[in-house]
Order: sequence, then C-alpha cells, then structure tokens
Amino acid sequence: MKSHDQLLNLLKRHPDQYVSGAMMSQELNVSRTAVWKQIRKLETAGYEIEASTKLGYRLLYSPDEINSERLAESHSTARFGQSIHYFEQVKSTQDSARALAESGAPEGTLVLAEEQTGGRGRMGRGWVSPQGKGIWMSMVMRPHVPIHCAPQLTLLTAVALCRSLRRLTELPIGIKWPNDLLIRGKKISGILLESAAEDERLKYIVAGVGISVNLSEGDYPEELLAKATSLRIEAGQPFSRSAIVAEFMQEWETLYDLFLQEGFNAIAALWESLSVSIGQKVRLVTPQGELEGTPVGLDESGAIRVERADGSLVTIFSAEMGEPLNRS
Amino acid sequence: MKSHDQLLNLLKRHPDQYVSGAMMSQELNVSRTAVWKQIRKLETAGYEIEASTKLGYRLLYSPDEINSERLAESHSTARFGQSIHYFEQVKSTQDSARALAESGAPEGTLVLAEEQTGGRGRMGRGWVSPQGKGIWMSMVMRPHVPIHCAPQLTLLTAVALCRSLRRLTELPIGIKWPNDLLIRGKKISGILLESAAEDERLKYIVAGVGISVNLSEGDYPEELLAKATSLRIEAGQPFSRSAIVAEFMQEWETLYDLFLQEGFNAIAALWESLSVSIGQKVRLVTPQGELEGTPVGLDESGAIRVERADGSLVTIFSAEMGEPLNRS
Repeated sequence: MKSHDQLLNLLKRHPDQYVSGAMMSQELNVSRTAVWKQIRKLETAGYEIEASTKLGYRLLYSPDEINSERLAESHSTARFGQSIHYFEQVKSTQDSARALAESGAPEGTLVLAEEQTGGRGRMGRGWVSPQGKGIWMSMVMRPHVPIHCAPQLTLLTAVALCRSLRRLTELPIGIKWPNDLLIRGKKISGILLESAAEDERLKYIVAGVGISVNLSEGDYPEELLAKATSLRIEAGQPFSRSAIVAEFMQEWETLYDLFLQEGFNAIAALWESLSVSIGQKVRLVTPQGELEGTPVGLDESGAIRVERADGSLVTIFSAEMGEPLNRS
Repeated sequence: MKSHDQLLNLLKRHPDQYVSGAMMSQELNVSRTAVWKQIRKLETAGYEIEASTKLGYRLLYSPDEINSERLAESHSTARFGQSIHYFEQVKSTQDSARALAESGAPEGTLVLAEEQTGGRGRMGRGWVSPQGKGIWMSMVMRPHVPIHCAPQLTLLTAVALCRSLRRLTELPIGIKWPNDLLIRGKKISGILLESAAEDERLKYIVAGVGISVNLSEGDYPEELLAKATSLRIEAGQPFSRSAIVAEFMQEWETLYDLFLQEGFNAIAALWESLSVSIGQKVRLVTPQGELEGTPVGLDESGAIRVERADGSLVTIFSAEMGEPLNRS
C-alpha cells in the first residue's frame, strides 16, 4: 500500500476531525515533511484537506471515482455513452473524440477524462478543468440531418444538460444563448459542438461538455470567481459525477431521438422555457458589428430573434452575447 | 540526360510523324526492349503515344507543365491561389489541404497535384485522377459566415468554375444540382466542399475541385465512358491547365467577394441560369426516402425547390439526383 493511501485511510477514519501531523508521522512511521508531501499529492489528485498549524489536517472532500464499465451499465441508452474511453489525463477530450470520429467510432462514443491539460472552450478560449472535480467529456454524434441543423443540436445539448442537472441538483439552472449554463448569472457549464460536413451533409459532430461539479472557490483563478461557479459551491454539497453523466446520457439520447423523429420545434420550446436570455436586454457582438436588443425567441432554424429599441426584429445566427443591460 | 528525355526529344522533333523502333534503338544506342520500356514510362507520365507495329511510334499528346510560381503570378487575385503547394503525387489534395487548414494556412491556400492515388468524390466515392491530364486541386476558405451558408459556397464554387470553363473553352457546360459540371449529360468536373465548424461558426472550408481537362477516352474505365468526359474529348483539342486554374481563381475570388458583400441572391441567380437541372423531371434519393419531381429553383438558403406531380412544392437540402426522366 502506498503511503498516501495509508494517510488517506487515516484521514477517512476520522471524518470531520483534525488529525495531528505528529500522530500521522508516528502511525505511518515517516517524517513530518514526508506527511506534508503526501498531503500535497492528495490535493493534486482532487482531495481537499484543511491544514491547521495547531490542530493538524482534516479531510474536507474526496473526489468520487468514475468506473467506466459500471458507468456504461448505469444508464439504459441504446447508443449514448455505451462505448466509453476513460483517461486519467488528456490534452483535450475534444481532440481525442475527433480522432475517434475520424477513424469511424460509432455514434454515442464517449471520451471522459479526470483532467484536461489543454481544455478548450468556445472561440479557442481555455477552460479550467482540474483533476477529479468536474466532468470533462466529448461525445461523437452522427445525425443524418443537413448541415444547417448543426446549431439546433447545440441548443438540444444545452437543454438535455440543463434538464438533467436541474433534476439531480434542484438548483435554478438556466441557459444563456446559445449554450452556456448559468446559476444566478455565473457559469457552471460550457458546451462546444464541432461539426465536420461534406457539402450539405454532416459527417459527424463532436459535442464537448465541461461541467464544474465539485470545484471549490480555491480551484478558480481570482478573476474568474465573479463569473464562474460550481454545483458544489451553489448547493453547498458535492455531487456524484457518475450519477450526473448517467442522467445526462439518458436525457440527451431521449431528446436527440425526439429531434430526429419530430424535428426542432419541441426542442426550441424546451430551450425557450429554460433560457435566461429571453426578455433580457443585451449587447451582441456579431461578425457584422455590434447591436443592442432583447432576445424574444428562437426561429425555426435555431437562430435567435432579437427586438431592437425601435421595435424592429433581427435574426442573429452567430454572436457573442454580453451581460444583461437591465438586470432586474 | 535521362534516356526517356532523349526519346521524348526524338519524338518531338517529328511532330505528327511515326518514328520507327529501329531508328530509336539506333539513335539512343539501346535495345528495342529498352525503347519500349521508355515509351511506357512516358505514357505513365501523361504523354500519349500511338504505337504501330509497322510504322513505329507517334507522339499524340504532351501534358502541359504547371509551374506553381508562374501560376501564382498569372492571376491578379488578392488571396485565392496566391500560396500554392504543388505536388507530383499525393493521396488526395483534399487531405493535404485539410491538414494545412488545421495548422492555420491562410484563405486562398491552394494544393495542386499532378496525380492523386486516392482521390475522393462525393460520399466517399473514388475519383479518376491520372497524372498530368487533369486539374486536381483543393483550396482553403475561411469565410466569416454562419454554418448554414456552407451549401451556398458549394453552389458558388460550381458557378465560378462553370463560368471560367465556358469562357475558355466555349463548350456548352451546365451545372447539375448541386455542383457537378456536365457537357451534354456527361460529367467533366466534380466539386466537394468539406467544412469544419465550431457551434454556429465556420472554422474553415476545404473546396476540392477535379477537372477532367486533357483525359482521352482511354483514360477512363469502360463503364465510366457513358457518364464521364473531358474538355479535350468534347472540344477535340487539349487545353492549358495553367490557364484554366488562373481563370478559375480570378472568377472564384470575384464571386466570393460579391457573396460576402451582397449575400447569396446574385449567386443563386447565376446558378439558376447555368443549371441543367431546372425544369428536368428527376428522381431524388434523400435521407428520408425517394421522390420524383421537377426542380424549379433555389430557395434563399441554397436548397432546391422541387415541384411534385400533384403541384406541391418541397424543399430539398440534401439528396442524390438521378438522370433526367423526360430528357427532351
């Protein structure tokens, strides 16, 4: 047994209590410095340990383990998440899943990683994805729909994730157009769909999803704390990542099959009911320039219709949406 | 000087005349078998040589050479074809250009190859691309337009190619929906646009274009001759590939800039005026099933509107279009 496993057992035998460094050093028969080094290792692996010079160490949080075999069995989907590629560490689950898609991986192939060293968000931005505390995943989709439906699948993915997270956490999670999930204005999840098409036919989509599940405030850079949060911070309790993935796969496949059979209308209605963007005046930065207006709903293609001050309606396909200008 | 260069010079010194095998063997001081082997090498390189047991050998056709530096200077575009990657042989120009696009190659980067060993057409089909006789090329585009505009760029590419080839060859070239070029019902060019998108934004498009310029009937497999032809077969004369590429780059960039400034309407009108599909009753195989009808025009997204026997109109985004059912 490795010494940091022994140390972890010692901390776990004393839930919610401090264990003194002297006692640890004695029980494990190692120096105080060695104890401190093992504590650092556990922290790197996602454990949170409070250190008090007077009282010693106290275990605050243990990451839940993801067992990819048990995970695949935990949801009764036909395709989504049935083939799981699980990594301790990758550069980006998105890059791994794209390589799998290029080499013919079937629809529903899921890449999960405990840690991303080069996680990507929208528009090439970085994404904070520390070890063991979030869900960093990408899934291959192969819908037989024309290329103009790709933005509809972006909205569908946000709806599926929002509905499954609301059900599990009971937190007031809403969707900011097109596909960020927010709690009280702070981001808890980002979604990025990368599509490959041949003429008017989609070849595949790789849907990347990052969910800040059990991150604590200390996991975020100072400047992000005003804009980002986690389920654990908001609920005051950690959540099982495996349970979230299972619930999400189930909901995602259900809505996806509904979309393929019935089209986008039902998805658009669900999106609108969960959106925090509708009715909020915002500034939009589009490739053609900036404008201010109030989103009023989706059109049948998945673009957002925005009402300007003069009452005119514009349809926006692509933009960066700013903070609400008239937050109530 | 290599012996096949000497042999080529000998043939070129006798235009339209037969040179006997005995004379060649004597002049080059090699065996008759060696002469025959060199002839085979020239044929592989795109030369066409008629062999007569009585009269000897006669040079019928020499491939025009492509000089990528002179080519880039021959057209006055701002971006299209200004950076040229020229290869004697590649698996597929499309794969090479995609790799360049992924690593950040600028808009207009052009990949040209004398020969493709694994040329690809629509839906993973093969593409006949022998050495020195056609234009096998792929170009990187980075338009700042939403993903649903990708099919419009497919139609734009067909219009640009059709207009430049008609101007240079004066052949009656038409466009079969969406982007095949035909002369008298036979295919002379195929176009394949592969897009990569992030959510609703196009990251890049790689436009693959194959043009059967100087192929002779002997270059096609027997079963393709009823469906495929070349500019040379149809016009009874070869054409300069460099001149075609230069003309095409010029026209393509002009229409592309028009599209970015003014939108799709003008392009749609040009496409409709060059189309051989409009007004011709056809069978269409779509992902949802088969239907028969008569294409009547494009809608504003680039999809084709088809009138059915009962007078109803359907909009088709993606389909394989069959031969005309009522060819007049």
